[in-house]
Amino acid sequence: MTPIIPADTIAKSPAIATRANNWQGLIETYRSYLPVSEATPVVTLLEGNTPLIPVPSISDRIGRQVKVSIKYDGLNPTGSFKDRGMTMAISKAKEAGAKAVICASTGNTSASAAAYARRAGMRAFVIIPDGYVALGKLAQALLYGAEVIAIKGNFDDALKIVREASENYPVTLVNSVNPYRLQGQKTAAFEVVDVLGDAPDWLCIPVGNAGNITAYWMGFNEYYQVNKCGKLPKMMGFQAAGAAPFISGAPVPNPETMATAIRIGNPANWDKALNAQKSSEGEFNAVTDREILDAYRILASEEGIFCEPASAASVAGLLKVKDRVPANSNIVCVLTGNGLKDPDSAITHSINETYKDIEPNLADVAKVMGF
Amino acid sequence: MTPIIPADTIAKSPAIATRANNWQGLIETYRSYLPVSEATPVVTLLEGNTPLIPVPSISDRIGRQVKVSIKYDGLNPTGSFKDRGMTMAISKAKEAGAKAVICASTGNTSASAAAYARRAGMRAFVIIPDGYVALGKLAQALLYGAEVIAIKGNFDDALKIVREASENYPVTLVNSVNPYRLQGQKTAAFEVVDVLGDAPDWLCIPVGNAGNITAYWMGFNEYYQVNKCGKLPKMMGFQAAGAAPFISGAPVPNPETMATAIRIGNPANWDKALNAQKSSEGEFNAVTDREILDAYRILASEEGIFCEPASAASVAGLLKVKDRVPANSNIVCVLTGNGLKDPDSAITHSINETYKDIEPNLADVAKVMGF
Repeated sequence: MTPIIPADTIAKSPAIATRANNWQGLIETYRSYLPVSEATPVVTLLEGNTPLIPVPSISDRIGRQVKVSIKYDGLNPTGSFKDRGMTMAISKAKEAGAKAVICASTGNTSASAAAYARRAGMRAFVIIPDGYVALGKLAQALLYGAEVIAIKGNFDDALKIVREASENYPVTLVNSVNPYRLQGQKTAAFEVVDVLGDAPDWLCIPVGNAGNITAYWMGFNEYYQVNKCGKLPKMMGFQAAGAAPFISGAPVPNPETMATAIRIGNPANWDKALNAQKSSEGEFNAVTDREILDAYRILASEEGIFCEPASAASVAGLLKVKDRVPANSNIVCVLTGNGLKDPDSAITHSINETYKDIEPNLADVAKVMGF
Repeated sequence: MTPIIPADTIAKSPAIATRANNWQGLIETYRSYLPVSEATPVVTLLEGNTPLIPVPSISDRIGRQVKVSIKYDGLNPTGSFKDRGMTMAISKAKEAGAKAVICASTGNTSASAAAYARRAGMRAFVIIPDGYVALGKLAQALLYGAEVIAIKGNFDDALKIVREASENYPVTLVNSVNPYRLQGQKTAAFEVVDVLGDAPDWLCIPVGNAGNITAYWMGFNEYYQVNKCGKLPKMMGFQAAGAAPFISGAPVPNPETMATAIRIGNPANWDKALNAQKSSEGEFNAVTDREILDAYRILASEEGIFCEPASAASVAGLLKVKDRVPANSNIVCVLTGNGLKDPDSAITHSINETYKDIEPNLADVAKVMGF
């Protein structure tokens, strides 16, 4: 067998349309659905267009011809779905003449804000509680050029200061209260429909601050209004058991879960998310950290998909309610962040051990391999 | 300003073709250019289709209407360009009936091999020298389900054992000698041409084992043969100064650079890479670690693009020879790996410091911000 294919095979190749794959980022692609105009300077890293990956081992666990796919938003430019909202938030900030942006965040939001702000030539301020955050979590934002300010206070103090700063100085707030972020995030629903040819039957999604479930629901509805899809999905929101205000029906004062990206006790988008669940006849449910970690490991070791632990809540939730999934249904689970964001969890939670001190010869190695 | 756009605006939206973004991975997209048949089971994570991102701050440093773009292959499913080769290598291994694959690698290859092998239902063995590798570097491969065997020996011993194992047992070798890997990797050149509408004038690329420069050159040539592009690029290969055998003209016994992904003294694809450089009238050049780190920081803090340090060698090299770039030329720099693969480098090499112990009130914070 030769690795080089014969020239006559090449010559018979059907033409692939040049520029077919020329994705220009989500603002250009979905411009007419977004609050932008010709005057808006588009700040983009060509975010979006993330793959919708079939996961047969999850489908098999459910059976009854159910088809499950993963919307793998960890393949956005900074490694999370936050880029969808940030391309909008930063483009609009630039249009308004802002020279700086500010947020209180220790994770994906600060990284995304810094990347887009710096690309737009703006300063990016990140306010965090002193001593609260390991440097590793902020490494990405710092390299992007974020200016991180640690205050002697808690996270609520940080939130208060970023609000006040944006009201008193020429600096735009890009925390979740920024209305353009949900506008950008809703494009993930458009992409799902564009690939499937219709909305899925269920959309399973991790719920923390509840912005993403709100944005997906907005996206499906806008597409439904213009007949891009012929149905709307049931919105299935999954929270970590220790941080599940939508299940208890009240804010959780001290949320606890190892899934840090959804460790939120008082979601900013409470009413909108509740509306999404009710209008879609969907449901909220809680999954334990153990169920989240099981799903995290299954995704990696059976499907080759590496996500943040919090992302795996969508798959953990689906598996939890699997007996209620209608036969033949088409289900999409959202993974919001790249597993590379959290190498510590990978080290702590992988099942396999490394075999050590093996003699450097084929016989000994083959024995370890089971031959 | 309301975040929801009016319904009549939506109704006037031009239709976006449904399924337009339905990328099926590189084997399906470029099937006729690859040594696969209907009998080949396609093992895919929908790799490829990575963005080609304009980098105006790099273009501005060169001037003379030169346009520079980044082929950001760190957005492949496991975070590096290795996925392009691995979808081919694992699909062909599965076609041949393999139940396991093996490689000697401490980095991107082992992660990619493990992800695709496990997705295909195969075992994935990774052989490494004892004590040589920090666990963090292998965390991703381990979570994917790799079985890591550390031998009392060096990297050459590990390479010898994986070869012998593949010759004596039903386990397929997926190290760089596997011929299918370059076949998959050449599709990156196809994607560049499909987006630009032609080949670029220069293709700048980091050179370690020299497989990727070989694969790109193969891809451009195959497209040129079928008139997909009207020219061929100059292949500009950049090595780390402490690991630059193509510049010295001889293998380097003890290669040294902080850019670990290209710390290779004796490239496997020596002759093919030399041919690419000569046939294209390109060149090899060396960049220091300091130049690499400067480019790494510029990409992150001015363009919002976070790559592995080794990847930045392509941009460092371009900036080094910038006075020789022809006016109006179109240049593509390849970034092979995601910066999230190496958080330690981000912590060590970011310029900004965190401001600490700031009083939690607007006045003090505003002072730090410079207002």
